Amino acid sequence: MSDLIIWTYDWVPKGPRGYVRDLRLRWACEEAGLAYSVRTVPFDGRETNHLSQQPFGQVPFLSDGDVEIFESGAGLLHLARKSEKLMPRDPIGEAATVQWLIAALNSIEMITVPWWFLEITGEKHNGLADWMGNRLDQLEKVLHRHEWLAADRFTAADLLMADVLRVSKVRAYGDRPATAAYVARVTDRLAFKKARADQLAHFAAADEGRAPAGQ
Amino acid sequence: MSDLIIWTYDWVPKGPRGYVRDLRLRWACEEAGLAYSVRTVPFDGRETNHLSQQPFGQVPFLSDGDVEIFESGAGLLHLARKSEKLMPRDPIGEAATVQWLIAALNSIEMITVPWWFLEITGEKHNGLADWMGNRLDQLEKVLHRHEWLAADRFTAADLLMADVLRVSKVRAYGDRPATAAYVARVTDRLAFKKARADQLAHFAAADEGRAPAGQ
Repeated sequence: MSDLIIWTYDWVPKGPRGYVRDLRLRWACEEAGLAYSVRTVPFDGRETNHLSQQPFGQVPFLSDGDVEIFESGAGLLHLARKSEKLMPRDPIGEAATVQWLIAALNSIEMITVPWWFLEITGEKHNGLADWMGNRLDQLEKVLHRHEWLAADRFTAADLLMADVLRVSKVRAYGDRPATAAYVARVTDRLAFKKARADQLAHFAAADEGRAPAGQ
Repeated sequence: MSDLIIWTYDWVPKGPRGYVRDLRLRWACEEAGLAYSVRTVPFDGRETNHLSQQPFGQVPFLSDGDVEIFESGAGLLHLARKSEKLMPRDPIGEAATVQWLIAALNSIEMITVPWWFLEITGEKHNGLADWMGNRLDQLEKVLHRHEWLAADRFTAADLLMADVLRVSKVRAYGDRPATAAYVARVTDRLAFKKARADQLAHFAAADEGRAPAGQ
């Protein structure tokens, strides 16, 4: 019996399904062979209903016995310390993994998510586009030379970077063949496919009994 | 003799002085009592001159013997593992520190930096303002109840969150007394003051012999 619990919403609309960030933690557990269970907090009222567990009203968060962790990046780092399959145990490989995991969050996603947010809320051609394009070009050069971001092998950094990059609007932004091949390669892993299918099934099951208007 | 080397630019214009992110690593070393030296890469040509050390052309990066790490957040996590003064050693305290350190990067800075970027490049009243205001309100509630983010004591998470929040445009955005008191409290620490003074002196010394137009 595992103590690992991944918390997510009980339901979400169809749009974000397959992208809710509990997928990052499911995927990591699948890669590492760590047993886990999934529990939920209500999507309705999410702004206030679980602030004691996640002060920004988001998911996922992770329980590991007495340890509770929000922020998917922090959850990934916690899981990476539990399994060499997610992060090498030598100091150089570990540092490279942490560095690229943080780069996914703070050098790439820090621009792609606000850019995407402005695109979908109507500020198309916003001022973040050039900045994002430049960063993606720099990353393309790295991925042109390296199959994996850290330690010449799959790590939690690839899991996170691929998850950041697979968002369709970002993926479609410019012709970057090494990046496209990288995202395809990383998301072709069985652990990703299982995690994504499990998330889709989880939310689909919650549709029953819910008014269609809520979808 | 320490093996810790913090890499930064040889010079920057006056605007960013006191905010270049080598300050985060200097500050952490000062808090922990870790000896370090500072070395430089040229600011001119930064887009391409040190891509082998930092693929996005940024600073800082950290050397610790054979280990090299870019991303200030990753450098902080590396330093935090070297000193209990930056992160508690018990699993719950460690998880809380990592979680809030990642929250500073990915829940707060992910909005404040793009918002600030759009403000200074002319897209004032951009669509990120409401999102940022909401996040800062949520953080205000946390800081109203807690003096420190993790483990009821100063940690590397406070160092990073305060550094994210002290940017003047963000600090001035709305009336949030608990957040204002928090930033004042954390940046009143001697280690912050020394790190900031050292950075200012480092860049001021580089002004000599440089054409005024470059400033």
